[in-house]
Amino acid sequence: MQKKVIGILGGMGPLATADLFEKIVLHTAAASDQEHPRVCIDSNTSIPDRTAALLHGGADPTEEMVKSARRLVSIGAQVIAMPCNTAHNFHAAVAASVDVPVLHMIALTRDVLLQEGITCAALLATDGTIETGIYQRTFENSGVTLITPEGDDQRAVMDMIYKGVKAGVSNYDTANVRAAIERLLTRGAETLILGCTELPLAVKLYSLDYPCTDPTLALARGAIEAAGYTCKE
Amino acid sequence: MQKKVIGILGGMGPLATADLFEKIVLHTAAASDQEHPRVCIDSNTSIPDRTAALLHGGADPTEEMVKSARRLVSIGAQVIAMPCNTAHNFHAAVAASVDVPVLHMIALTRDVLLQEGITCAALLATDGTIETGIYQRTFENSGVTLITPEGDDQRAVMDMIYKGVKAGVSNYDTANVRAAIERLLTRGAETLILGCTELPLAVKLYSLDYPCTDPTLALARGAIEAAGYTCKE
Repeated sequence: MQKKVIGILGGMGPLATADLFEKIVLHTAAASDQEHPRVCIDSNTSIPDRTAALLHGGADPTEEMVKSARRLVSIGAQVIAMPCNTAHNFHAAVAASVDVPVLHMIALTRDVLLQEGITCAALLATDGTIETGIYQRTFENSGVTLITPEGDDQRAVMDMIYKGVKAGVSNYDTANVRAAIERLLTRGAETLILGCTELPLAVKLYSLDYPCTDPTLALARGAIEAAGYTCKE
Repeated sequence: MQKKVIGILGGMGPLATADLFEKIVLHTAAASDQEHPRVCIDSNTSIPDRTAALLHGGADPTEEMVKSARRLVSIGAQVIAMPCNTAHNFHAAVAASVDVPVLHMIALTRDVLLQEGITCAALLATDGTIETGIYQRTFENSGVTLITPEGDDQRAVMDMIYKGVKAGVSNYDTANVRAAIERLLTRGAETLILGCTELPLAVKLYSLDYPCTDPTLALARGAIEAAGYTCKE
């Protein structure tokens, strides 16, 4: 297979962009620098907030996303990855604007679950990601049932993201989140989808020792393979 | 001050590139994604090995480095950073090829030491970086004396880099490196310059609790400021 250049349409946010790039590097089977794929990144922090656009009438991010995709192609990108869950609501417009494939992080996550034989997964994410329905639409008729935390349990997830991780609190009390997760597992969830880029950090920081699926990792591995390289096992 | 777009001429190697990008994100004073600088990256793994070119007659990396610099400028970069110590032997050629400033990681490291009032620093680096003389030339007449490990002590540093960090050995025996560091401190070193991108990792991995100066961090902070943003304290 011919080797391809990976483009990362980033800046949504910058830290999630750095996380995807690092995961691509760490998960490529390579014995020297020269055996890694070339990766181009546009961490375009001028892209307006996606949740604000979808739920609160904020500025449309499509134009800036398309600009970044075209810039990446102009310097050689042959396959594009977007490390932002909510941004996938604009995936079709971005994909239509360039003549290289734009990977779909959420579809790749669904495919990982299918390969693992999982039939029920719990989505941990912000209210915004859940309300935009991007996961629900992508998982429809796939054979993987998606469940989400209910009422106070969803509030517990939001609180951990905003009052815990984003606030830099290393000893955040996770009792409510753990109770919420236990209820999801009781309802049949075989894994927790970490559908917000703060969540892989939360899992590590607060030692949340549950079966998890990381969409950024699914995207990293998808990008490595789409570029004709081999993933480390 | 007008805000500028940061370009990272990377791929030397890819992990050091990811490390610089993450340090730029983590050290920028910003309350939202949109308050971060736009960062463009070309992690160009086609750039030939710099040490091989300088010491062993390997392929000249200048052409590929210049290509990347020009690509970054073509998509908007207004100030360029190169996260690779040895690559700075080719800094002048790259800087001459574009009409935007190319930051000098080693000069920025020297300036950090001068600001801190340090007059003697020990350079921990690979044989290649030391033999090319890039640190010695940059520190000449600066008021900061540079010392390097002698004989078996330099071998101990090399071994830790290659047989410890690069080999992924988490319980590597650092007795020889610690003895080497103690001798550098006795000779008057006030700080250890981590002049190889594996070394910040070694310091963390093996709990080497000595005063250290990280050139990648100096470059990250230099880039943030050159782009008109403020560093977190």
